[in-house]
Amino acid sequence: MTQQQALESNFLKRVIVVEGDPSLRMNIVNYLTSEGYTVTEAGSAYEFYQHVFLEPNTVAIIDTDLSDQNGQVVAEYARKNTAMRVITLSSPLSTNTLPTNIKAGGDLNFVKPVNCRILASCVANLFSRLASA
Amino acid sequence: MTQQQALESNFLKRVIVVEGDPSLRMNIVNYLTSEGYTVTEAGSAYEFYQHVFLEPNTVAIIDTDLSDQNGQVVAEYARKNTAMRVITLSSPLSTNTLPTNIKAGGDLNFVKPVNCRILASCVANLFSRLASA
Repeated sequence: MTQQQALESNFLKRVIVVEGDPSLRMNIVNYLTSEGYTVTEAGSAYEFYQHVFLEPNTVAIIDTDLSDQNGQVVAEYARKNTAMRVITLSSPLSTNTLPTNIKAGGDLNFVKPVNCRILASCVANLFSRLASA
Repeated sequence: MTQQQALESNFLKRVIVVEGDPSLRMNIVNYLTSEGYTVTEAGSAYEFYQHVFLEPNTVAIIDTDLSDQNGQVVAEYARKNTAMRVITLSSPLSTNTLPTNIKAGGDLNFVKPVNCRILASCVANLFSRLASA
């Protein structure tokens, strides 16, 4: 095992996807799973809070337009109370979401529609940066 | 059973107390229990989210100074996603908390220190108003 591989192995390839749209959530989950990640699904803030401390996820992908609570609040919770890196997904209809999402603690923000391949690349980059930090 | 008693029985005497200070939480829980309420305890927003849909609580008493998430956010969640009546407890050091707590959807706000007897009277009033609505 190289030193790089040893470092990367310290960060479990676990991601939690908090997305209210079942179709988009399934696409992201399937893509990340095919890339070798273990993925936890949550369709609401409530489901996020049920899972947040159950599994040692390294990255959280969070829709900012959840039905039960503003996803920015969920992102803030993740940043304040966990070591997870956070990627937010926002609607193009939400004006000026990027500064707010960044303020909420997101490491990265994607505007929908989400290209799963690019999203997975960014997730890989986050893991890579964690390993080299 | 009188008509009033029949109406009141529709509202379970169940209260959830979300308070970060263990001592204050115990005092409130003990007082409400002695008044015949079934009380669920939560010491953080996280614990609130674990319980919120498990028991059919009628009233939520929520500290606005929780360690893991602003209690006003928790109060907003309760108002948006449940039928619970909400009483917020705020610190006297928090300036202008009352308008913000009311905006967050609190039915009532108490500034600490909390007098458990008065708090219990207000809880009883909420139940009474629910029964007569």
